[in-house]
Amino acid sequence: MKTLELAARLRRNDPVALAKAISLVENRRKDYKKLLESIYPLPSGPLKIGITGSPGSGKSSLIEKMIAGFRSRGLSIAVLAVDPSSPLSGGALLGDRLRMIQHSNDPNVFIRSIANRGHLGGLSLSTHEIIDLLQAAGKEIIIIETVGVGQSEVDIVNVADIVLMVLNPDSGDEIQIFKAGIIEIADIFVINKADLGGGDIKAGEIRNYFAMSGRDPLVFSISVKEDQGIPELLEGIFRFQREEVGHIREKSASIMKNYIEKIIVERFQEEMRLDPAITSVLDGIGRSNPYLAADQIVQLIKSGGIHDKKN
Amino acid sequence: MKTLELAARLRRNDPVALAKAISLVENRRKDYKKLLESIYPLPSGPLKIGITGSPGSGKSSLIEKMIAGFRSRGLSIAVLAVDPSSPLSGGALLGDRLRMIQHSNDPNVFIRSIANRGHLGGLSLSTHEIIDLLQAAGKEIIIIETVGVGQSEVDIVNVADIVLMVLNPDSGDEIQIFKAGIIEIADIFVINKADLGGGDIKAGEIRNYFAMSGRDPLVFSISVKEDQGIPELLEGIFRFQREEVGHIREKSASIMKNYIEKIIVERFQEEMRLDPAITSVLDGIGRSNPYLAADQIVQLIKSGGIHDKKN
Repeated sequence: MKTLELAARLRRNDPVALAKAISLVENRRKDYKKLLESIYPLPSGPLKIGITGSPGSGKSSLIEKMIAGFRSRGLSIAVLAVDPSSPLSGGALLGDRLRMIQHSNDPNVFIRSIANRGHLGGLSLSTHEIIDLLQAAGKEIIIIETVGVGQSEVDIVNVADIVLMVLNPDSGDEIQIFKAGIIEIADIFVINKADLGGGDIKAGEIRNYFAMSGRDPLVFSISVKEDQGIPELLEGIFRFQREEVGHIREKSASIMKNYIEKIIVERFQEEMRLDPAITSVLDGIGRSNPYLAADQIVQLIKSGGIHDKKN
Repeated sequence: MKTLELAARLRRNDPVALAKAISLVENRRKDYKKLLESIYPLPSGPLKIGITGSPGSGKSSLIEKMIAGFRSRGLSIAVLAVDPSSPLSGGALLGDRLRMIQHSNDPNVFIRSIANRGHLGGLSLSTHEIIDLLQAAGKEIIIIETVGVGQSEVDIVNVADIVLMVLNPDSGDEIQIFKAGIIEIADIFVINKADLGGGDIKAGEIRNYFAMSGRDPLVFSISVKEDQGIPELLEGIFRFQREEVGHIREKSASIMKNYIEKIIVERFQEEMRLDPAITSVLDGIGRSNPYLAADQIVQLIKSGGIHDKKN
């Protein structure tokens, strides 16, 4: 399939073309940049919902319920599961995917796992790009799921309009200590497994945490297993979208800036890897004086020109 | 104190000058770049030991014992505790610091907490710079401690020659799941609180995890409370340093590259924030086509020149 034909079919929400386009971008295959450059401007705003939380908190079964709820409102949905690089947790996520198989015959539900190669530095550039492909295909709800492991979890704030954090009543000290710093990126807290009891206590802990900073976040106690609280959660998400327009607009602008910055940084990094003059600065003065090396490399980048690799 | 005098006193290991220089760099005060440019080339290689692990695993009391052990070998030591931004865990770290007060009269033990403002993007550039100040002052052992919270934990691999991860026998599923992806950056595992029993089981779990990838990492069971296993751990660190020369040299080179990259990226980011032409690209085409915006910004950076802010 030619790149432009692929882009055209993608824009008509052809799932085969979409899957192919994602593979092209994920694996940096020939013509992936040409494809990306041909999808702009994108159709206007899907709601991008980031979902994070520890393994075992019930994210995947929650997403399954959310898919059903959004579908009953006639919305077209994509789920992008960002797998951390580790073989172990990667496997766990893959198993979770299988549970979503009940939606597999619905052309308006597109589910895809991607590896996140930019793992140590947060979400990779390709994650942003793949979300754009989903938007180009006209998806109205894009759910981005990350497992609760360091970088990619925190970086979800750079791709999602709304961040949901899934917790359980018995998640222990997690909130007070372990999650400190990560908890602050969430817009909505979902306490799953509330049928076990203790949901209110956990909700109180979350509110107490934020009382220090004057925030009063949305908290929902639900039970995926007992099918309780899902409609209220979805209503809460839509209400957040309606009422926090300014917040979401600001977030979209900062998502875009972060995205552009990642593209530019990737180009300079390519330059740094490929330009023999820069490599020789790194191997020479770069061993002893980083500031002098940085000065020289900036000069080289500016005089030498970025290798324009529109492959 | 003039900048060059400060640098001279710093190089003579004057603790007052060192503390002042760190504050200058941490707070980006006037002349901090001039100070940094005047400390190169640095005296050769201190051993930089990164220590990470969950709060409560006993990192700080372990560090206290390590300080005593290194001091008895006559080595000059600095401990840099990188606090995540969160008010809660920041407080916990500060409390831990107080326990190290027994070394406070020893001029060859320098302990400092710094806030890590670059939190969401890993360790900030100033963390690298402050480590260089410690090296300039002639420290032979530099311990960098991060609390087990996302980004800064993983990014420690970009500043330390050797990474120690501190665990407890009862840390539960942490290793199998929660820490997946983070566990892989550690060179040496320290199972503290082995007096509780179960240290061997945890050691086995760690070895099993790595059996999949063919790695056989160093694992030490110790008890800080019972003062057991510390000399063996220090011997293990020195053995690693002696035997893994190639690994450490490679790591040093990649630390330096990462450092230089951060300097360059910070310069381009400053440019992006300050240049009105770039801001107008971001506000215009940047709203709809990130690739076009990136192209235009790269051209602007190359034609407009980096604002050279040697303040």
